[in-house]
Amino acid sequence: MERVQAGHAPMLGKRVELGPPRDGRFKGKHILSVNQFSREDLEYVFSVAEEMRTAVELVGTFDLLKGKVLACLFYSPSTRTSSSFIAAVERLGGSAIPINEVKYSSVSKGESLPDTVRTLAAYADLIVLRHPETGAAATAARYSGKPIINAGDGQGEHPTQALLDLFTIRHERGHVDGLTITLLGDLKYGRTVHSLARLLTKHDVKVRMVSPETLRLPRDVLEEVRSRGLMVTEHASLEEVLPDTDVLYVTRVQKEYFDDQAAYDAVQGSYVITADTMRRARKDMVLMHPLPRVGEIAMEVDDDPRAAYFRQVQYGLYVRMALIAMVMGRA
Amino acid sequence: MERVQAGHAPMLGKRVELGPPRDGRFKGKHILSVNQFSREDLEYVFSVAEEMRTAVELVGTFDLLKGKVLACLFYSPSTRTSSSFIAAVERLGGSAIPINEVKYSSVSKGESLPDTVRTLAAYADLIVLRHPETGAAATAARYSGKPIINAGDGQGEHPTQALLDLFTIRHERGHVDGLTITLLGDLKYGRTVHSLARLLTKHDVKVRMVSPETLRLPRDVLEEVRSRGLMVTEHASLEEVLPDTDVLYVTRVQKEYFDDQAAYDAVQGSYVITADTMRRARKDMVLMHPLPRVGEIAMEVDDDPRAAYFRQVQYGLYVRMALIAMVMGRA
Amino acid sequence: MERVQAGHAPMLGKRVELGPPRDGRFKGKHILSVNQFSREDLEYVFSVAEEMRTAVELVGTFDLLKGKVLACLFYSPSTRTSSSFIAAVERLGGSAIPINEVKYSSVSKGESLPDTVRTLAAYADLIVLRHPETGAAATAARYSGKPIINAGDGQGEHPTQALLDLFTIRHERGHVDGLTITLLGDLKYGRTVHSLARLLTKHDVKVRMVSPETLRLPRDVLEEVRSRGLMVTEHASLEEVLPDTDVLYVTRVQKEYFDDQAAYDAVQGSYVITADTMRRARKDMVLMHPLPRVGEIAMEVDDDPRAAYFRQVQYGLYVRMALIAMVMGRA
Repeated sequence: MERVQAGHAPMLGKRVELGPPRDGRFKGKHILSVNQFSREDLEYVFSVAEEMRTAVELVGTFDLLKGKVLACLFYSPSTRTSSSFIAAVERLGGSAIPINEVKYSSVSKGESLPDTVRTLAAYADLIVLRHPETGAAATAARYSGKPIINAGDGQGEHPTQALLDLFTIRHERGHVDGLTITLLGDLKYGRTVHSLARLLTKHDVKVRMVSPETLRLPRDVLEEVRSRGLMVTEHASLEEVLPDTDVLYVTRVQKEYFDDQAAYDAVQGSYVITADTMRRARKDMVLMHPLPRVGEIAMEVDDDPRAAYFRQVQYGLYVRMALIAMVMGRA
Repeated sequence: MERVQAGHAPMLGKRVELGPPRDGRFKGKHILSVNQFSREDLEYVFSVAEEMRTAVELVGTFDLLKGKVLACLFYSPSTRTSSSFIAAVERLGGSAIPINEVKYSSVSKGESLPDTVRTLAAYADLIVLRHPETGAAATAARYSGKPIINAGDGQGEHPTQALLDLFTIRHERGHVDGLTITLLGDLKYGRTVHSLARLLTKHDVKVRMVSPETLRLPRDVLEEVRSRGLMVTEHASLEEVLPDTDVLYVTRVQKEYFDDQAAYDAVQGSYVITADTMRRARKDMVLMHPLPRVGEIAMEVDDDPRAAYFRQVQYGLYVRMALIAMVMGRA
Repeated sequence: MERVQAGHAPMLGKRVELGPPRDGRFKGKHILSVNQFSREDLEYVFSVAEEMRTAVELVGTFDLLKGKVLACLFYSPSTRTSSSFIAAVERLGGSAIPINEVKYSSVSKGESLPDTVRTLAAYADLIVLRHPETGAAATAARYSGKPIINAGDGQGEHPTQALLDLFTIRHERGHVDGLTITLLGDLKYGRTVHSLARLLTKHDVKVRMVSPETLRLPRDVLEEVRSRGLMVTEHASLEEVLPDTDVLYVTRVQKEYFDDQAAYDAVQGSYVITADTMRRARKDMVLMHPLPRVGEIAMEVDDDPRAAYFRQVQYGLYVRMALIAMVMGRA
């Protein structure tokens, strides 16, 4: 039997089966950090994201947020992330104001973030912010009269990426509890990994951290997630953990964190996933990467059905659609 | 009793009370200069802007200009102004083609403004133009088969800013006639102030010009507005005029007009509005600023109910929606 | 009698007369090269483009592609071309994700084109690509799960420009067969001319190639089009072919292909079309230019009714709307 939730506009004449009515707990809220999500909240997000997936597959676009305007304010450019949010709001029937590469200086030149945010809040219904400084999203939220979604602030948080990562695991494997998840590569600077580790504390999983000595998970993050009950072990070699790994999450080693090319090359090349790696992995392993990659996974692996990183991109669209609809009070 | 003007599309199922039917006098016209607006025209603009305010507050977005395409052609970038126009057309149900930071040279490299404008007129229904050269908007209008809205051309005009400034005064105080309006700061280079002074000649107001000696209103502009009957006095100190001031309009002192940092700092710091200033101001004074500010108004003032500059941003959206709807013949 | 094709949404309440139902032969196809179009395909494209012209003139915008999302991925900026595609999808009722000036390097920095394309294919229904490398569009097509439209790849193809050029000739003259068409200027580097010459092989026309010695059509292109039956003669002077010319297609001489300013000036100035040139041309000649021009046609010619280059821009909108609708399976 089909049922349509009150808040849902008819989807171009078709109807989709929707989950139980929800409590609108995210209406008008900011999305700033993974830490604001309880396990129950995560269920909420993911069930809305599943609905979005169904609806997009059925009709592509629908009018749930017809007339809503999203300001996409990116102080540091990110084609990938801004495109994802613009597509998300357009598929929900709304529209975007794209603002890229804002001229920026923390010193007196140019406008302050609070003033820019208050200005955009006068025009838009929702602001997606990417900013090079840690804590910028929280600052913006203090001044904005409209919901802020943090699309990455410096070394701080990138909660929508972590949520889509977790959604990918859940969707690819059917569940999260009970899995052995290996995080590989740059665990020091990759904020994605820190956020994902924090989200995993809300689940019953084993986590293997595999990195070169110089790029281990920061001690404070390790303490934090262990104190919240996450079972974490650290390793220098992928080989010893590969046979047990259910989910292998590979990260990009970012050049800008290295002093010289040789140091970069040494680390960058040390954990490349190839067809040979995949032969030694579990038949049902899920291989993930937040993208962009710069060689950490060989292109020969792309056709392996276990390579989930392009599906991960697709799931990101659904998760971002869900978050936008939720803070706008329509899911 | 509710009535809907012929040209108005139903607003997402709701109806708003609208003013008397109008004569469509701006249909197909260019908006190039404040000088093209008679007092009666201003009433027209502002009554449409009030309707836009009501409609946005009721429904956010509506389909008055469904299917209309606005080209937002900015030769010099301005996130603030372009975002405002894009939001305006999107809230009217239309869409935008954003064109930022056009590679530009007045010499032979690149395409001439007339050719670019004729090209965009083939794609869009309306062109919003910002350009670094005075007179560029008038040039564009000569070649465009579609209406041009001047969003600032060099040291020339910025009519939509002046109109939103006047709308702010009117909306905040309920009227304009009879007020004492103080313009503070850089009165020499700030085109906003020149345009606003010209608009004020159509009203019965007293204007106080407060600036350092080096940044006084240009003599020709002073002559012009006085010859049109505007009562203007000039002052070096805010103190002597503050007690009588109904509207205090603060401007940004733009660094690019100064030879060295010391000269800039001296002037820039000379008229900073603080909580202390506000204590000595009238209880019903309206404090305005075209934004962005770079320190002319201390952040501590932001929470003062007399601080109208963020509401001014909001009014700007309504005024720009009104102008777009008017030139498209829908208001 | 009015008839509406199945795939066509009602156009804002109005109806337009449409051609015979079509076979959807371009549904899901990539548009990569002019060589993929048979003479019959060209008829198909142009009859859809004529419908688009009628519909735009009647209603401006319509909902044929409501909800479709086009990613406009430009590795090298082109305001003109990207604006044209964005306007095209918006007039079809869809929306765009504009992505301009992607940071790009063929070396290891940054993401590979296949990865970027696979990412955007997860968000959008269609990708329009401009790229500085020859063959990039074909590479993108191999990896994209969604149709790719080539909007110019290096010295390779720019099929939508060639199609709109041919549509212009057809529309301005009523037919193509039997005409004498003169191509003037830089025939060496101008990819537009190469593509147009290839399309002309499918028609019964005489082609005159007029260029300085240094900018003659590449020998391999000349061989290719002659071997396909195109009647081509080469000339150094416009004078000898002007009297017989039905269509004069002028190209821009691009500065970047010259070693020094003097060499550029000599060539650039050698074939300027003036009012005097037009006096010696046929009364029904069609004067075309792909734009932007940098002096090859004097502005004094713009008001001559034979000057078709701004109408050519307008036809470009219709042809791009047609191609988008065709690959989306709606025409």
